[in-house]
Formats: sequence, C-alpha cells, structure tokens
Amino acid sequence: MPVPAAASTALAELLGDRYSEALSERELHGQSETFHRAPPPDAVVWPVSTAEVSAIMAICHRHHVPVIGWGTGTSLEGHALATHGGVVMDMMRMDRVLEVRAEDMQVSVQPGVTREALNLELRATGLFFPVDPGANASLGGMASTRASGTTAVRYGTMRDNVLALEVVLADGRIIRTGTRAAKSSAGYDLTGLFVGAEGTLGIITELTLRLHGQPEEVAAAVCAFPTLDAAVECVTATIQSGIPMARIEFVDADAARAFNRFSGSQLREQPHLMVEFNGSPVSVKEDVQRFGELATEFGGEGFDWATTPEERAALWRMRHGAYRACLALRPGATAVVTDICVPMSHLPAAVAAAAEDIHGEGLLGPMVGHVGDGNFHSQLLVMPGDEAELAAAKRVAGRMAERALAVGGTITGEHGVGLGKRPLMRAQHGEAIGVMAAIKAALDPENIMNPGKMLPEAN
Amino acid sequence: MPVPAAASTALAELLGDRYSEALSERELHGQSETFHRAPPPDAVVWPVSTAEVSAIMAICHRHHVPVIGWGTGTSLEGHALATHGGVVMDMMRMDRVLEVRAEDMQVSVQPGVTREALNLELRATGLFFPVDPGANASLGGMASTRASGTTAVRYGTMRDNVLALEVVLADGRIIRTGTRAAKSSAGYDLTGLFVGAEGTLGIITELTLRLHGQPEEVAAAVCAFPTLDAAVECVTATIQSGIPMARIEFVDADAARAFNRFSGSQLREQPHLMVEFNGSPVSVKEDVQRFGELATEFGGEGFDWATTPEERAALWRMRHGAYRACLALRPGATAVVTDICVPMSHLPAAVAAAAEDIHGEGLLGPMVGHVGDGNFHSQLLVMPGDEAELAAAKRVAGRMAERALAVGGTITGEHGVGLGKRPLMRAQHGEAIGVMAAIKAALDPENIMNPGKMLPEAN
Repeated sequence: MPVPAAASTALAELLGDRYSEALSERELHGQSETFHRAPPPDAVVWPVSTAEVSAIMAICHRHHVPVIGWGTGTSLEGHALATHGGVVMDMMRMDRVLEVRAEDMQVSVQPGVTREALNLELRATGLFFPVDPGANASLGGMASTRASGTTAVRYGTMRDNVLALEVVLADGRIIRTGTRAAKSSAGYDLTGLFVGAEGTLGIITELTLRLHGQPEEVAAAVCAFPTLDAAVECVTATIQSGIPMARIEFVDADAARAFNRFSGSQLREQPHLMVEFNGSPVSVKEDVQRFGELATEFGGEGFDWATTPEERAALWRMRHGAYRACLALRPGATAVVTDICVPMSHLPAAVAAAAEDIHGEGLLGPMVGHVGDGNFHSQLLVMPGDEAELAAAKRVAGRMAERALAVGGTITGEHGVGLGKRPLMRAQHGEAIGVMAAIKAALDPENIMNPGKMLPEAN
Repeated sequence: MPVPAAASTALAELLGDRYSEALSERELHGQSETFHRAPPPDAVVWPVSTAEVSAIMAICHRHHVPVIGWGTGTSLEGHALATHGGVVMDMMRMDRVLEVRAEDMQVSVQPGVTREALNLELRATGLFFPVDPGANASLGGMASTRASGTTAVRYGTMRDNVLALEVVLADGRIIRTGTRAAKSSAGYDLTGLFVGAEGTLGIITELTLRLHGQPEEVAAAVCAFPTLDAAVECVTATIQSGIPMARIEFVDADAARAFNRFSGSQLREQPHLMVEFNGSPVSVKEDVQRFGELATEFGGEGFDWATTPEERAALWRMRHGAYRACLALRPGATAVVTDICVPMSHLPAAVAAAAEDIHGEGLLGPMVGHVGDGNFHSQLLVMPGDEAELAAAKRVAGRMAERALAVGGTITGEHGVGLGKRPLMRAQHGEAIGVMAAIKAALDPENIMNPGKMLPEAN
C-alpha cells in the first residue's frame, strides 16, 4: 500500500531528498532487534526541525497516512514497525543539545540526541543524565517508551526525569507541556501522558531533562552467590534496609557464562549481583560496608571491586552487552525478551518460578535484571523459523506476565508495550483500557499515530 | 437550582440520611479557607464504599447533576466550591487504611484517610508517608491537587508517591490505574493523569502509596540571615552543592514576626531558613557540617538546633501554623495566597521582585516557601469587603505569575488551579489547553465532574 500520490508529492516537495521511498531505506527502517516482524514502511522522512515535523503531520493527517516515530531502532517490542504501513519518521537528524542550564540542573535537547552523546556534552559541567537502558538509545525514544534501566533504583525512570516536552500532535499542532520548575500543580500532567505513549499520541520534538550532580565518590563491585534465591533475597534485604544503591543488578549463571564467552570476563558460572554506590567518600564507605555485611549473610563471596573509572566502565559495558552476549550463546538465534516487574517481596518467588518454567519448557533463557526495582528480564533464545520453540517461549513469557499480574505487578517494567505486550494489556488494565482508548481517540481521531500498537485491536 | 427531584429521590433511597439537602450541611460544604466565595452546593452525600460512589455517579450522570469531591476543605484555591451547583461528595467516611505492605514499602488507603492518621497507623512499622503540605489534609485531596510541601525537596510530590489508584468515572464506571510494582511501561500513565486533575476527571476511591523508611538520624535547625537575598542565595547554593536536604524552608521577616506572636517563638524579625537533614548518623553529621559552612558564607547566624523529637515537632508545628499565624497578623483579614515555582537560578530574583511589588502596593504579605523546589508563597492579607485591596492583591499575584512564566516557571507549584489560577491557565499552557480540554471532554462529556474549575471557561 504505497503512500497516496498527493501525500507523496507534498512530502517530497517539503523535504527533497529527506523523503524516500527507496526499498533500502524502507528496509533499514523496518527492522526489529527481536523476533517481531512486519513489512517495511511505505516511505521514510528525516525532519530537521519542529516546523517540518508539524508540516509532515499536517500532510499525513490530511491524507490519512500512518506516521511512526523512529530513533535508534533499539526497541525490543517492535514499537516502530509499520504494521499498518505509512511513513517512518526518523528523528535522528534532530540531534542538537539546545541548552545546558547547569545552575538549574536542566538541559533541553532534541529527540535524536542519544544518552551517550548527551553525557559527553555534559562532561565538563559536573552534571550527568542518569537514565541508562543499556542501549545508546535516543532520548526521544527513551521518553516514548518510559525507559529506565540500571540506575532507576537511585535516579528514577524517564517518568521522573523528563520535566517538559514539545510535542507535535496528529494534526500538526505544536504544544508545550510541563515547565522548567521542579514541580507544578497547574493542570493535567500532559508530560506524563506523552512519556510512555510510544508515539501513539504525538511526536516528541524537544525534551527538557532533569540532570544530576556527578557523585563525588563511586564504588562498584560484582559478587557471586551460591544460589539464585540467595542472590535475589539479598536484593530485597538490601532495598528494605534502606542502603541507597545507585545500581543493583542481577545476573544468573547462564548470563554469567554468556559474559565470560562474549566479554572475556572470568565470572564463576553462578548467580551474581553487580552493585554501585554513589555519594560522598564518607557515605559510600559506609554503604559499601553495610552492603558487604548483608551480602555475606546471604552467602555472597568473591567480591571484585572496580576501583578505577576504567574498571567500572568495563563492568557496566559488560552488563550493557548482556543482550548481544546472550544472543551469542546460541549463534543464529533471536530472542523473546520478558520484562516483568513485581513488588519487592514477590521478587524471589517470581525469579524462581521463571527459572523453573524456562527449564521445564527446555528453553535457554539467561536472566538479568534491575532487581532493585523488582524488574528482571529473561532472554528466551529461539531459532528463527522454529515455530514450536517460539510458541514455547511465548508460553513462558505469558505465564511470567500472568504471575506478575497475580501479585500486583506489571507485564512490562521498562520495555514498553509495542506489539509484544499488546495482547496482555486488557489483562493488566481491565476497564481502564477504555479510558486509554478514549484518550487516544480524542488526540488522534484518524488513528494515524503509530497505529496497531499498545492498545488492543478492538479499540 | 435544587437537585432534580428524580435524582434527589434516587440518592436518598440509596444513601438514607447520608444524603442531605439541609442548609447547615450545604453551608459547611460550601466554605473556603481563602477569599474565594460561591453559593453552597444543592446537596451533600457521604458515601462509605466504592460501590456507593459508583452508584451516586451513575445517578448524577443520568440527571446531569454536577459532583464535587470534598476532603478536609483545606484547599486554598476554591477547588471544592460548587460554582455550578450540584452535589458535594464528602469522602471523609471512606477513611480506612486498607493494607500496609511493609515489605514492599506500600500502603493502600481510602481517600478520606488524612496524612497524620496514616502516619499514626504506620508508627510501629519503621515506615512513614512523607508528603506534607502542612494542613492535615485527606490523601484523596492531596492526590487530586498534586500536593507537596516541606519534604518534596527530598521525597517528591504526590506525583512521585502515588503508585496506583482506584477511580470512579463520570458515568459510574470503576477503573484501576497503575500497579504495585516500582515502575511500569505498560500504557498511558493514567495514575499521573488523575493525580492533579482536581476531581474534574473522576473521583479517587482508593490510593496505593509509596512509603519510606524512617530515617535513623534527623537533625533540624532554624537560622537567621541578614537579608532576604542572602537567605535565598544560600538555598540555591545548597541545592546546587548537592547536599541532600530533607527540608529547606524560607521564612521572611514578616512571617518570623507572625510566628513570634502566634507561636510564642523568639525569632529575630529577619529572614530565616528552617532546615532538616535525614540519614545515617554519619551522613547527617557530614551534611550538617557542610550546610553550616555554606550558611555562614551567606551571613547565616544564630543557629538554633532542634535536637529532640519534641523540639523538632515544635519547629515544624510552628512552620505548619504559618497560614493561621500570618492571618492573625491582621485580625479579620482573609488571604490571597500565591504559589509560584521557578527554576532554582531564578529564585532570588523572583523572591526579591515579589517583596518589592507587595510593598509597592502597600500590602502586608508575609512570605514562606519550599524554596528547595524553587516554590514560595506570599499570603496577601486583605480585609473582606475592601474591593480596592483585593484588586491590589490580585494585581500582585498576577504579576508574580507573569514573572514566573517569563522564566519558564509555573503559576502554581502545589496548591493547584481551582478557581484562583484558572484565568492564568492559557498563559501557561497555550495550545496545550486544547489537549487538556479534549481529555476532559473524552472522560466527562456531560461536564459534571467539578465543572467550572481548572480549565478556562471557553473550554
């Protein structure tokens, strides 16, 4: 279903060679990191300004052409696949850091700035942007999926770190949400509404982000535990004790094995925790000691402290490489990635049940997790084309989600809904799906903003 | 405009003597803490369950009767006044703490539980609910106005501490938003949408709140500064230095005078900061020392440390009594209360300009503020019936709001919009008002949920 000729002509006139119907570009913008598949979009556009995004939306609105936002393409749930055809809007040429306001601990950026590029830009300010999903994702994409990652236990998620947005609506109108103040009680929280909306309500064209002071002192370590239960119980005990963790990451024995093969580490093939403490020298010393005592109680041993910035960078590079490392355990495989998040007291049982279920189905599914938030992932490795294996992986993922919902948790802690979690949305939200659908219909009556995602099809 | 007979009969049948059209009850539920005035509502209802709230909404929806939620009646912007007539729904008989989940650091409560009642209930758990707007408000009301207060600089606002809600919609449908997990990427952030919606989208019937560990060590102090500028500059320097403040409150010379008269304190009639530090003994000691050094740089002196729990309670009781204390400076007066919030770097200029403007108009307007967030209040004292004075106070409030908007701030940091800030909403939000209006129309097409509030009348 090609772009209607009138729309195609208008877009080409507006954008010149920044509008393309070439198959190579369409295919590049139709890929997914995981098992999700869809035909490529009908065209790709590369806007360079808010005004252009607005003009593109106005054209596509007039001609009922779907528009799907695109960042770095690192989504794990097929969010940016053009399942209903239409135009993929690649935001990566809107990549300027617009203004650093160090005194206010804020920055304004365009959506195509990646988190690593932003932190490079901030290097000299003593400030940094903490949200860290692993991938060097674009900040617009991170906001759209309400991303979080390893540091959320200390610094919160994108929900907590986006202060204000500029958004282009489905019909091309440009709005600003939020303010530069630390808090506001003035009206509906539209910033919060667009963060996590996965491009189904509008296109984010500018973000105002909260920055944080670089900690004076940082300490990081990895340590091994005799059992999966012991490692996870140590996490809940740590969080409940109030030790202010900057990161507390869980890695199971399969993932440790994957790291060793892929990153050349020499971890024992056992469950591990990777931890980091931020603060003043005095407070970090105290936190390290208290955590050490707790970990020892749970059988933690073989503490390997990363004392230099280089060693710490290597440690977190290894953690961030988990996705590729785990894929490499089974060459040629793709992955079904789970993302449940449960209340802390239910974490040990949730991890144990997942492990049992994965082994029961005969799957290989290394687990890692931001367990300080009660969030963990299994990367269920499946061979493309093996429908039985894919079905088994989906069964495991479905049961993990059911168990999460049964204890008041969520089907997705940070990856978002996209295509993958859409069938589970009604189970999680019940009648509230009707409210989401009403909001979607109110803001995008033509259903051209990333259609076919997030909300169940009936809506 | 009485309640239509059919609705009146249906409500009386449903609720018995928990439905009242008695003038005394209507007048009790038509009062405002500040200068806002409106006729009393046509009737009052006291539901005791979610099912009753749902049934009441269904009746009122059928008969197009406005419904206005009511908590402790401590709103400062006339939020709960029945400007369009209708039924006030008093939520204070839904006052049960439903479940304390200490291991998950969460609690589920009904909306009529007050923050003090909750913390009394939590006393033995080692946990507490930190959001503290001063008044012993109901938690449903605090969520509805997105309240914050003295502790937001450390623990965040209601936006950050409400995890999940049960809400009854305009037509009586009951939905649940959010989860018990620490974070979620599953769909639109409806919890965030209802928090701060001021009862214009639905009635909150249950809240799941985040709890925090009681700090091992607490230190609090009050100290005097030679000038208003010096006190406020000390705040921005403190926040920028990253010292983790639990509270940092500003009080001007007029407010100090009011405290002395009302609370029997012996503060110098100068600007003051009131501060509190929470943490481990080691970290609090370090924070106290670093803050002391900074304060001294800005001329702070006469540190009065509250070392016992009783002394600390007295200090914060004094601060919480600011509203009454300032009113007592001018017997018979009522107040126009301002609530702007600005980026930190603009705080000194904003406070200085406000002081100059207040004096320029010949008004008495003591200032206090949660300045760690960039948020401060002036309580502009006006005599009821003195229209010239009221007009002057409104001019000052309007110019403060304009200056806040000019530097990217907000017209209301924590009090909400209600009636008072409604005329300024378009200036703050521009085109985004259209999105808010679309959401309102989608969720409350009959416009029966607290009509005439928050959104400009044209919408």
